[in-house]
Amino acid sequence: MSVCGRIRVLYGDTDQMGQAYYGNYLKWFETGRNEWFRQMGMSYRRIEEEGYYLPVIEVYCRYFKPAYYDDLLCIDTSASLPSPAKLKFTYRIYRENSGEIEDDKIAEGYTVHVFLNSNKRPTKPPVFLRDMVYKNERGDSL
Amino acid sequence: MSVCGRIRVLYGDTDQMGQAYYGNYLKWFETGRNEWFRQMGMSYRRIEEEGYYLPVIEVYCRYFKPAYYDDLLCIDTSASLPSPAKLKFTYRIYRENSGEIEDDKIAEGYTVHVFLNSNKRPTKPPVFLRDMVYKNERGDSL
Amino acid sequence: MSVCGRIRVLYGDTDQMGQAYYGNYLKWFETGRNEWFRQMGMSYRRIEEEGYYLPVIEVYCRYFKPAYYDDLLCIDTSASLPSPAKLKFTYRIYRENSGEIEDDKIAEGYTVHVFLNSNKRPTKPPVFLRDMVYKNERGDSL
Amino acid sequence: MSVCGRIRVLYGDTDQMGQAYYGNYLKWFETGRNEWFRQMGMSYRRIEEEGYYLPVIEVYCRYFKPAYYDDLLCIDTSASLPSPAKLKFTYRIYRENSGEIEDDKIAEGYTVHVFLNSNKRPTKPPVFLRDMVYKNERGDSL
Repeated sequence: MSVCGRIRVLYGDTDQMGQAYYGNYLKWFETGRNEWFRQMGMSYRRIEEEGYYLPVIEVYCRYFKPAYYDDLLCIDTSASLPSPAKLKFTYRIYRENSGEIEDDKIAEGYTVHVFLNSNKRPTKPPVFLRDMVYKNERGDSL
Repeated sequence: MSVCGRIRVLYGDTDQMGQAYYGNYLKWFETGRNEWFRQMGMSYRRIEEEGYYLPVIEVYCRYFKPAYYDDLLCIDTSASLPSPAKLKFTYRIYRENSGEIEDDKIAEGYTVHVFLNSNKRPTKPPVFLRDMVYKNERGDSL
Repeated sequence: MSVCGRIRVLYGDTDQMGQAYYGNYLKWFETGRNEWFRQMGMSYRRIEEEGYYLPVIEVYCRYFKPAYYDDLLCIDTSASLPSPAKLKFTYRIYRENSGEIEDDKIAEGYTVHVFLNSNKRPTKPPVFLRDMVYKNERGDSL
Repeated sequence: MSVCGRIRVLYGDTDQMGQAYYGNYLKWFETGRNEWFRQMGMSYRRIEEEGYYLPVIEVYCRYFKPAYYDDLLCIDTSASLPSPAKLKFTYRIYRENSGEIEDDKIAEGYTVHVFLNSNKRPTKPPVFLRDMVYKNERGDSL
């Protein structure tokens, strides 16, 4: 199961090539995972309030087609636990100007996160977070 | 006396009109005041370490000419204390691609800041900061 | 009559003071006016396709209260024609985390724009744009 | 041979975790390659004036240590041609607050670019650009 975070491309997101600047996609990835947390029942804001930080240690993005000013984008997001100490989000970005998700992928990528406690020291993933990922994965197979 | 902070306009700072997006000038203002603090002998980083925050409560910018990709800009910055509880920075942005500051101003503006202590409560301006502003003002008349 | 553009504060919009960085409000102003154009029946994207550019020549913002990570903000936007050659947008930013607009204003400000044609030369405001502003103003008094 | 582009971390680059937001590193990569082009004798601005665009089709970044507000960073940049139609930049980011490059890498990554002509259609890499990469590679072995 995946969750769709939505953003609209700002004028300030474009560059003089007339399309969205490559660096902005990482903010959009953040919108995707923020929405993922919210849909799984616990916003990332609350996760930090519970004393956990999930900094990014790795990011990858592949750009297939340009995103243009005023495009409405869906950042389709899912999560997995590739190792006991890491959380991975996978993102696929689609245009949905027409109100429907268009076939062509604009971009796809991932981020890898580690778990830190409130002292910014490595810590085990909290149980509630593992449960969120399992819930997300079970959703996939329904 | 004024201090010149320098930045180079990134591709990511431009928009599809082919010039720097208006929102980016506020980052450049920050570069101007960072450099001002450094020239006055105490970086803003150290000011926060001493337990003070100087959040912006007001900003104004007037745009005269476009800034283009790869332009080298000088953010000419000076400071004043318009009231006991406020610090004001005034910025003038010039192009200096030729190695010299060009006559035409690209933009000008100001920010107004208040003084907060480490608990984010209003506080008096620290003496060292008032001294920095006076030093800056005396420099003007030399 | 005013129009509400909505944004959610990203983690990347915050700074180490734990609140949204002052420069980001200008992107949010853009969201406000993008939504204003859309509500008035013609997106800014289409205005550029019709051969007009509306660059910002002036911006002002007053910050009243911090905006925090994950806040849902409403950028309440209205437009006026302060002189024949200028378009002015006025913005008021409110938090609406609870689903309702909260009383306290976070920030307010304005942008002033001029009209350029497709060659980036000054031009008269197109009739359809003046009509949009009049429509917006009549809405206010209903 | 590699080229060092320099940037100073802005307050606006930090987030509420107290370190630079992961998305900003992509702007810094851009500073690295801008400086690379300049050192090789032809700014990217001039490359576009010659009728070529080099959009990013892929980006990767690995974050080793946080970058903090006011850090002076060196973006050590080199280039290669992994296939006839692609240009790859490799970046290593170091802190150099002390005036010297510190041992510990903050981050490293790469971008892959394609060659488009002024109509945004795929085109062969211009000879002058291949020469720049060869010059860079020869520098490595000196």
